[in-house]
Amino acid sequence: MLFSQQTYVERRKQLRELVGDGIVILFGNNNSPMNYPNNTYKFRQDSSFLYFVGQHREGLTLAIDCNSGKEILFGDEVSIDDIVWYGKVKSAAEMAEESGISELRPMAKLADLVAEAKGRTIHYLPPYRHKNMMVIERLLGIKAEEQKARASVTLIKAIVKLRSIKSEEEIAELERAAAIGYKMHTTAMQLVTKPGMTEAYISGVLEGIAASLGSITSFGNIVTMHGEIMHGCPSPRALEQGRLLLVDAGAETFEHYCSDNTRTMPISGKFTQKQREIIDIVADCHDLALTFAKPGLRWYDTHMAVCRLMTERLKEIGLMRGDTDEAVAAGAHALFMPHGLGHMMGMDVHDMEGLGQNYVGYDDTIQPSDQFGLASLRFARKLEPGHVITDEPGIYFIPDLIDDWAKSGKYDRFIDFNKVNEYRDFGGVRIEDDVLITPDGCRFLGDDRVPYKAADVEDYIAQYK
Amino acid sequence: MLFSQQTYVERRKQLRELVGDGIVILFGNNNSPMNYPNNTYKFRQDSSFLYFVGQHREGLTLAIDCNSGKEILFGDEVSIDDIVWYGKVKSAAEMAEESGISELRPMAKLADLVAEAKGRTIHYLPPYRHKNMMVIERLLGIKAEEQKARASVTLIKAIVKLRSIKSEEEIAELERAAAIGYKMHTTAMQLVTKPGMTEAYISGVLEGIAASLGSITSFGNIVTMHGEIMHGCPSPRALEQGRLLLVDAGAETFEHYCSDNTRTMPISGKFTQKQREIIDIVADCHDLALTFAKPGLRWYDTHMAVCRLMTERLKEIGLMRGDTDEAVAAGAHALFMPHGLGHMMGMDVHDMEGLGQNYVGYDDTIQPSDQFGLASLRFARKLEPGHVITDEPGIYFIPDLIDDWAKSGKYDRFIDFNKVNEYRDFGGVRIEDDVLITPDGCRFLGDDRVPYKAADVEDYIAQYK
Repeated sequence: MLFSQQTYVERRKQLRELVGDGIVILFGNNNSPMNYPNNTYKFRQDSSFLYFVGQHREGLTLAIDCNSGKEILFGDEVSIDDIVWYGKVKSAAEMAEESGISELRPMAKLADLVAEAKGRTIHYLPPYRHKNMMVIERLLGIKAEEQKARASVTLIKAIVKLRSIKSEEEIAELERAAAIGYKMHTTAMQLVTKPGMTEAYISGVLEGIAASLGSITSFGNIVTMHGEIMHGCPSPRALEQGRLLLVDAGAETFEHYCSDNTRTMPISGKFTQKQREIIDIVADCHDLALTFAKPGLRWYDTHMAVCRLMTERLKEIGLMRGDTDEAVAAGAHALFMPHGLGHMMGMDVHDMEGLGQNYVGYDDTIQPSDQFGLASLRFARKLEPGHVITDEPGIYFIPDLIDDWAKSGKYDRFIDFNKVNEYRDFGGVRIEDDVLITPDGCRFLGDDRVPYKAADVEDYIAQYK
Repeated sequence: MLFSQQTYVERRKQLRELVGDGIVILFGNNNSPMNYPNNTYKFRQDSSFLYFVGQHREGLTLAIDCNSGKEILFGDEVSIDDIVWYGKVKSAAEMAEESGISELRPMAKLADLVAEAKGRTIHYLPPYRHKNMMVIERLLGIKAEEQKARASVTLIKAIVKLRSIKSEEEIAELERAAAIGYKMHTTAMQLVTKPGMTEAYISGVLEGIAASLGSITSFGNIVTMHGEIMHGCPSPRALEQGRLLLVDAGAETFEHYCSDNTRTMPISGKFTQKQREIIDIVADCHDLALTFAKPGLRWYDTHMAVCRLMTERLKEIGLMRGDTDEAVAAGAHALFMPHGLGHMMGMDVHDMEGLGQNYVGYDDTIQPSDQFGLASLRFARKLEPGHVITDEPGIYFIPDLIDDWAKSGKYDRFIDFNKVNEYRDFGGVRIEDDVLITPDGCRFLGDDRVPYKAADVEDYIAQYK
């Protein structure tokens, strides 16, 4: 367990009080088979289960009776055969005790609990593992296709409320993740100019750093010469002189707190003039959050301030034109940045995304938009101390999108498509760091900053070329 | 695609002929969510699907009508939104054409195919991904719990027959996996004496090598000071002077052909006398396959020859006693080696384990045993050129097992438990390489051998200490 028993006991108490009535069932994760039943992916516990129980073992489920306060851990004990093959591990009883849960029952008894609860509300979260969907089908008689719609909004809101505010000790763990991220991104910069490099090779090395210093990457690495593709998969192609390499990657600590950073670096070691102009804009947009975001403002406000600055600067180099406020209101800048400024981060890299973006990223001061670009803003709501959000502006040149918009004629007032066409093969630039909202403003997580300004990136690479 | 279209066309033709009647449905794999729906583990295609279709995309299913010869690929086309976020990829139609499959239909039409097949046999393999279990429930109306029992034995036997014999071009790919394995194990030896090392750190570095030079480790790394635990999980404990480190790890190439090797190395750089005596026995047992295994013999025969040699040698150092043949017949040596000599390897590290060990490892010349130790022999049947099997003898001192056997008194004739007790804290030693059965005998896969004999391991480590 990462934190003290008291921390987990207190979290469950708060959860019980917030939900108020009925039975909460939190399903832990099971091993996920890769290519046959016993060959499984690396075990990764469910984040909410981990938040309230702190145990990494597969095959556990927590039930909390919000009325009586009774807590029961469901899980099976290991056999002697297991000990020969997998070694001595904590027993389920020991885990329950360590987490301050007074009762342990075998998993087969979970159905009895549900049967006894007839008529009472059973709160569960939207499942994402197919195994748990099957368990819920059998246990609650709800078809997998309907489970998300019938998940408990009360439970979701309670958990979002608790997990959104990171405690001091959680921030310390996020800093540990940031240190692994620092190592990943500086390693990419040390490798990028080396002969024989491929996207896939560098990506694999970063996976190794996450696995050796933490547990696993916080998401599938994006290591690509095609930065304009939002989730470009690392390919076995050799890196090409003159192009940019965009690296968006993060680590999870052993306890599954995340980092998430992006850097864009020149494969030759030096940016071209055109590349430098674009990265300078993105770097300034990235820095804006530091002077802007603070409790009471919404992250939406930071996003919009970045869009305005980006539009101003794109006007200076002739890619955009017209009135800045009108262009941003029309969403014209989204040709270049079709995504939002950032998302919440914590024990999930898109924190609690599985619980529903509306609950995590929006509140009564701001609702999701339908506008292209703004619709992809995952986090918009009013900032509070303890929020952790990614700050990740980017500028991309997406040929299919450019052609689509140019043909429609709709944005001719704000975009010079002739000029934009000169950038068709440019790719994309993104810079991303993780921001903690403090009582007075905000700061980046991580003691060491991976170089991100053009000159600093070049200087860093030059040391290893 | 790894091989030519002709290879996949020919494999499907052979499969059709072997199955003879009915419709074969091969379900490809889908993305497997890790901690929320869109954060998935690295995609890993199903090995049989890959063997017959050659495509790595998620969300594909192949149907073959064995009577008419008709082949249909089911899969959905990507949308414009997908292109912005994930880039341009081969269309499903292009994949079907590349694989020589004449017809493509959207996934939603698979149910129609099943409806039209009323009364005909539908052959499917035992599923292991819960998503595919849910698909089969909906499609065929067979509950997940009954799917394994109702899987097609005809289809299983046909696929085992084809996949068991590795072609020249498959062997070339296995050699590529072996080269990655070489890099992993020599790297472990380079690190083992370095200050500050932990099991988990070394394991993570090996994951990085598999990911950068191939795709993923072929199974969860075993990197442990407790070699006596068969599947010991790497822990964050610091390596301890005087102990052995057992490293059992392998890689999958980008195309998912595997390697699987084990080395046991001294953390101090030098084996103790006691450790050296045990590793010498295991090394000689490991070498025995090379002079023994050949087409016509069974792998069971090699296993038994190794058990006899191990017993002879354990008698020399006073751990065993009595008549060697009687001791082996009684299974007394299984106190030290409670597992079989090896398993088939190919596109799965335990090749086709999900199809059923009896079909893969046994035939009419040999049936599985109930005896402790021998019961864990995964591959026993008559050898043919093109078989690839692991050769992995080991000697372990498992305190719980020693106490259990000592108490029973059953093996006092063959085992000196007083002497065995002197080894309680020893741990375990295993040496594993991958053997290709050739027309005349066998050979190890991989051009370079990772050092495994005590003196060679020490010499190798000394270079990096």
